Amino acid sequence: MAAPRIAIDGMGGDSGPAAMLGGMARALKADPSLRFLVIGDEALVGAELDKHVFPAGSVELLHAPDAIKGDEKPSQALRRARTTSMGMAIAAVKDGRADAALSAGNTGALMAIAKLALRTMPGIDRPALTALLPTLGEHDCVMLDLGANTECDAQNLVQFAVMGAAYARTVLGLKKPRVKLLNIGTEELKGTDELKEAAAMLREASYLPLQFDGFTEGDQLSRGKVDVVVTDGFSGNIALKTAEGTARFVTDLLRRAFTSSLRSKAGFALSKPALHMLKVHLDPNNHNGAVFLGLNGLVVKSHGGATPKGICNAINVAARMVRNDLARQVGEDLDNFRAHAFNGSEAAK
Amino acid sequence: MAAPRIAIDGMGGDSGPAAMLGGMARALKADPSLRFLVIGDEALVGAELDKHVFPAGSVELLHAPDAIKGDEKPSQALRRARTTSMGMAIAAVKDGRADAALSAGNTGALMAIAKLALRTMPGIDRPALTALLPTLGEHDCVMLDLGANTECDAQNLVQFAVMGAAYARTVLGLKKPRVKLLNIGTEELKGTDELKEAAAMLREASYLPLQFDGFTEGDQLSRGKVDVVVTDGFSGNIALKTAEGTARFVTDLLRRAFTSSLRSKAGFALSKPALHMLKVHLDPNNHNGAVFLGLNGLVVKSHGGATPKGICNAINVAARMVRNDLARQVGEDLDNFRAHAFNGSEAAK
Repeated sequence: MAAPRIAIDGMGGDSGPAAMLGGMARALKADPSLRFLVIGDEALVGAELDKHVFPAGSVELLHAPDAIKGDEKPSQALRRARTTSMGMAIAAVKDGRADAALSAGNTGALMAIAKLALRTMPGIDRPALTALLPTLGEHDCVMLDLGANTECDAQNLVQFAVMGAAYARTVLGLKKPRVKLLNIGTEELKGTDELKEAAAMLREASYLPLQFDGFTEGDQLSRGKVDVVVTDGFSGNIALKTAEGTARFVTDLLRRAFTSSLRSKAGFALSKPALHMLKVHLDPNNHNGAVFLGLNGLVVKSHGGATPKGICNAINVAARMVRNDLARQVGEDLDNFRAHAFNGSEAAK
Repeated sequence: MAAPRIAIDGMGGDSGPAAMLGGMARALKADPSLRFLVIGDEALVGAELDKHVFPAGSVELLHAPDAIKGDEKPSQALRRARTTSMGMAIAAVKDGRADAALSAGNTGALMAIAKLALRTMPGIDRPALTALLPTLGEHDCVMLDLGANTECDAQNLVQFAVMGAAYARTVLGLKKPRVKLLNIGTEELKGTDELKEAAAMLREASYLPLQFDGFTEGDQLSRGKVDVVVTDGFSGNIALKTAEGTARFVTDLLRRAFTSSLRSKAGFALSKPALHMLKVHLDPNNHNGAVFLGLNGLVVKSHGGATPKGICNAINVAARMVRNDLARQVGEDLDNFRAHAFNGSEAAK
């Protein structure tokens, strides 16, 4: 298939065009077949472009007169979609000029613009922000929703499960991903009505290409015993940020311990190569790139504070999804689910 | 004041009477003035009692014919309150034979039995499970609710804020604790309606002995910039368990790193004394003892898997609350709050 073409919002994120262009340069070094449409202020992005040597024809610059601010309300951002780098990157996906869009900007605005321009897939009421979390197991774990939807009903959660499993199949290469719902206990009677209802629906849906294993709790997320963790956007965001904060907390304590005496400093010097692996494993840049699943088009969100390495990882996430035709995979699973659910409800009459 | 008398559910928790009696022995060693009423199967608890030498008159054993199971439904446990060690420990608090009760058993059952027997304080609709979390700051941070109430309205959250602040004042010795609501962003428009409404109410209540600082996110919990974190029991439980799981994840990675080569093993040996501090800081036994705030009586919940050291810490939490007369402090703050809230709504007419 043709090489992935990725539309880049050149103006989003804490360090603006510098991180985005740096990330593109890294990604192209590893895979020169990639194609970029980078959108933003011609002068600012152009200046950063000049700092790199890109393969001929790999990068196209499109001027955007404006940019969405980090604290802009989604409703306001929506009205400025046509003239902003973020809105124009999404439009490029809609028009077929790009296979995926990447932005490190305002999450709420990105979600609102993407949802309005691309619309949700048939059978999906709400898109979900999806990412990979590090685990002790052989591969990362897929988690959704991470903050796109503050409140979700049972139907939303079931749709998230279907989409998350399709993601795990295509991106992680798993045949029948193990799916669990995040809850405050593993017994059937625990949690909200929405969770209990979603669990009942997933238990019935044995025809889906996933293995539903019931509920899981926050302390199990990184144990490597589950492939897809499904939750509403509020709890998902709390869990994700608490995990990030706790990882930083422990490494800060570790730093204190290592600098507390000459002896421990010497110990640190000796252990440094091994501890470097820990740092690599925990660096959020190495897990960068969350995707809005459930839209008619691929949209990837980067951490606002991502480094060029982080942006490069997010680009790789986007490229992998394009190459694996994630959208088609999710669409097929959803069609399958709807066909069964429809037959089921017909039969029940 | 007289020494704290603590009723112990001798049968709860993963290791039953052994951990409970071991914890009592540790606590008495540090503070021989403590008094215990330990409740459970006479033979089982008696056998553990014989393994320790307690100061004369410090421990009384009360036979309970039955015990609440770990997976028993709260509704079922309620019916067996009168004959079980857990129910009898709560009854001892109600009757004034003990100043506080401690159990390592089934949380849902403990909550249900305690709520029915002790009732909520005037002005409190629901009690909240409250604990101290480790931080990088000078002291721990108070967090509530950690799982007693799956769903909470704005009024519940405001009551939790008042109780949490009273807890921080008495147990942490802070004059005007900094209180924040856990949310998925810090902007005023973020989150559920309940959170926005609770924030509006707390912003108005400047007469309260607390400083309301708006919203906080999951990654800020351990930074030491907030004294009391208020949330509903679902999100609170997810955050607490995710933090525990992530801390374990990072230390597991650390262990792998240290054992990956001879060189790193040597580094570990050198750094061991400093790393021991990290272990102490993260050991859940050192932060054991969550309290149900808002009841007419003190009830402390221990981790089910707590060691004697963990039980000893939970006993210390209970003793400190009794000595600081936490119940009176919370009651006064609530009276104050209700008086103002009442005047406010009268004035608005």
